[in-house]
Amino acid sequence: MTDPRQMAREYVRQNRTKFLDALKEFVSIASVSTDPAASLEIHRAAEWVATRLRALGAENVVILPTDGHPVVVGEWLRAPGKPTMLVYGHYDVQPADPLEQWHSHPYQPEVRGENLYGRGASDMKGQVMAVLSALEAARETGGLPINVKFLIEGEEEIGSPSLAKFIEQNKDWLKADFCLNTDSGMLGRDYPTITYGLRGLVTFELRVSGPTSDLHSGTYGGVVHNPAIALAELLAGMHDKAGRVTIPGFYDDVQPISEAEHAEFSRLPADEDYYLKQTGVPSLWGEPEFLPDERVGARPTLEVNGMLSGFTETGFKTVLPAQAMAKISCRLVPHQSPAKIAAGLRQYLEQNALATIRWELMELGGSPAAITDINQPGVKALQQALKTVWGIHPLFKREGGSVPVVTQMQSILGIQSVVTGFGLPDDNLHAPNEKLHLPTWYKGIEALVEFLFNVGHW
Amino acid sequence: MTDPRQMAREYVRQNRTKFLDALKEFVSIASVSTDPAASLEIHRAAEWVATRLRALGAENVVILPTDGHPVVVGEWLRAPGKPTMLVYGHYDVQPADPLEQWHSHPYQPEVRGENLYGRGASDMKGQVMAVLSALEAARETGGLPINVKFLIEGEEEIGSPSLAKFIEQNKDWLKADFCLNTDSGMLGRDYPTITYGLRGLVTFELRVSGPTSDLHSGTYGGVVHNPAIALAELLAGMHDKAGRVTIPGFYDDVQPISEAEHAEFSRLPADEDYYLKQTGVPSLWGEPEFLPDERVGARPTLEVNGMLSGFTETGFKTVLPAQAMAKISCRLVPHQSPAKIAAGLRQYLEQNALATIRWELMELGGSPAAITDINQPGVKALQQALKTVWGIHPLFKREGGSVPVVTQMQSILGIQSVVTGFGLPDDNLHAPNEKLHLPTWYKGIEALVEFLFNVGHW
Repeated sequence: MTDPRQMAREYVRQNRTKFLDALKEFVSIASVSTDPAASLEIHRAAEWVATRLRALGAENVVILPTDGHPVVVGEWLRAPGKPTMLVYGHYDVQPADPLEQWHSHPYQPEVRGENLYGRGASDMKGQVMAVLSALEAARETGGLPINVKFLIEGEEEIGSPSLAKFIEQNKDWLKADFCLNTDSGMLGRDYPTITYGLRGLVTFELRVSGPTSDLHSGTYGGVVHNPAIALAELLAGMHDKAGRVTIPGFYDDVQPISEAEHAEFSRLPADEDYYLKQTGVPSLWGEPEFLPDERVGARPTLEVNGMLSGFTETGFKTVLPAQAMAKISCRLVPHQSPAKIAAGLRQYLEQNALATIRWELMELGGSPAAITDINQPGVKALQQALKTVWGIHPLFKREGGSVPVVTQMQSILGIQSVVTGFGLPDDNLHAPNEKLHLPTWYKGIEALVEFLFNVGHW
Repeated sequence: MTDPRQMAREYVRQNRTKFLDALKEFVSIASVSTDPAASLEIHRAAEWVATRLRALGAENVVILPTDGHPVVVGEWLRAPGKPTMLVYGHYDVQPADPLEQWHSHPYQPEVRGENLYGRGASDMKGQVMAVLSALEAARETGGLPINVKFLIEGEEEIGSPSLAKFIEQNKDWLKADFCLNTDSGMLGRDYPTITYGLRGLVTFELRVSGPTSDLHSGTYGGVVHNPAIALAELLAGMHDKAGRVTIPGFYDDVQPISEAEHAEFSRLPADEDYYLKQTGVPSLWGEPEFLPDERVGARPTLEVNGMLSGFTETGFKTVLPAQAMAKISCRLVPHQSPAKIAAGLRQYLEQNALATIRWELMELGGSPAAITDINQPGVKALQQALKTVWGIHPLFKREGGSVPVVTQMQSILGIQSVVTGFGLPDDNLHAPNEKLHLPTWYKGIEALVEFLFNVGHW
């Protein structure tokens, strides 16, 4: 076996345990970006990535501070004349709570059956490690066939607030032919997937208050508009009975689903039964005139992500709460603008909040949706690589999640992203018992090896 | 000064500091009845009351276990031929959270200005101590002019679940001519008040669930009915736009407010401005065809006392929560039945909850409203006592709060309650910074001395 591509794939098969051990180390760092108390763990994770890049032979590996969490950069530029790939990733993770619902500790990764359980195992420490493992395999066998740069950030799970400025400031250094972004996933074990559309996101905290302090519900119940009820009324009015969002102008800029796209969506394997099984809900919900996959991939949504008011412990307290809070987010599709949606929500509140309460809307950041060019050479190279390893044509999908960096790569660096990943729909992303399906992950690493060589042969 | 009534009042004036010190001791016990972890403090509070009764000269003082928290009983029966008064009180308190909103520790009582701050200072450790202090004053001067029995329970703040059975089982022993219940309050410093109506209460926990675990709001947003939104929709539908409760049958059994009662309500000092000032709300709310005092005293309400779903910490988590919870309570008026209201709420949920979610309604107990006879001799004796001390005719009110024991005294023992108290509307009952206005409290103790002697002269 002297074909470097085959040697590299063989290296992957020989070193599965080593790759898994490294991933376990990475997952054991509780790098929760939204938690101010986790700052030490954030820095530990950045250091871990930097150390790993250096071990891989990357040069100029630096941990660069931002206004928020640091970004790790580095480069391997020893393939003159070959394309340069910018590897994007994030080392931060979602919070692990509710902790009591985990079957093993979120930061003590554990293999059970074919899966590795731990916060970040799939989103996206496993995906970062897949790329680094493929690069290691190529480098340890015949050498990297292309040039590589790295940008691994620590704020993806909070909407990448420092990233646009960072990319802007380091525009020249980040120059590349395309970006590889593995922060997406597959539609099933047998469905290698390329994501060409990603929803945007805009996030809010809505606070409703009334009385200056909690009141006795007996002494004042009847004359005070209960802030929890007032909040419930405002939230309830944000959808109509058919599941459409009622925020003024919400659908104004939504790109309609073309007939060709509708045909492609109809080919995807995720039907109603799939979603019922994945979620466990008694019945699906949402805009009835669209397919489930269209509702998730190509239609905008408004969700309540958290809600808190009054007494919530065991037992009962007959309090009339002074305030109530909801975390709200909208997933956006082309060509909705986060600022316009925020203005629409504010207008909705102005029109619907009664004079009996006070309200405050905090805008917590957002980014628009992204659509990438499916005819770029990077996508062709990946398409071929996935087909080689899985034996079937990959699916093209528009995904419900949000990866703001895809838009930023396009608008600031002028480069397209190749978006994929080897997580599965039942990986419990952002939920208790997040896991990574290891056989799929190992296949993914081999596909990335194929991809590197395909790019090397542009 | 040989008039025993005057000597007893003088004793009260001389011993204010001693009474206050005893109250501070009582308040420093964190006897939170809803908190399973506070069991030790509950028992400490019961012991404290028993010790205090014994020091007062009461006999047969016993701490009796129930299915829940113990009841302290005792008696002083040395005034043959005189009426027997059953003193009702509770030694338990509401939870103190949110702790960070207290200016001093809830269980380290502190005098600031004219007020004593601490959980239970007003509701109702201060009111129990007012009765014990008046009894001490009479006993230490000329002797108690009447017979007294004591029933001090530890579950009032959780709806007195064990009390009805306890009263039933000890019916003979508890025999008395009337019950003195100081678990109510005044309408203002210059408005001594007798409460003749109390609202009932029925409490619930409503749980809405959908997905089997928290989901990624990008991956599943659009096909899943968000349980937080579904809960908000159900809660929002429980009132119409005019603030009327929409639960089926909710108003069926409500006793209308008579013209005479409406005239009496119109005389009460609490107008819109009063409620605006007491609560700090920007504008009042509620059934527009009723006076604020009528809405609080004579109309039923439905409140959300707590609400929880998803991610509620600092920062953001784009989760689609698996479940959402609300604590709900209804204040009831004559002749609403807690069981019928519970059935109505269940019917509302059956009619309005969509098939996209699951729900569960837990009934956490209830008791009907009470109206007492304002022509009973005990009320006359109190009316005279309040007039003597304050110099003005006391107000008669129907109160928004709930004191289930008033109903039980009537239905099980066949005796009327005399309901009063010396807390003020701004005492922050059930809220942070609960306080007791000491000058009013001292006056209240003297009024109770007058009351004892008035009863002695029936």
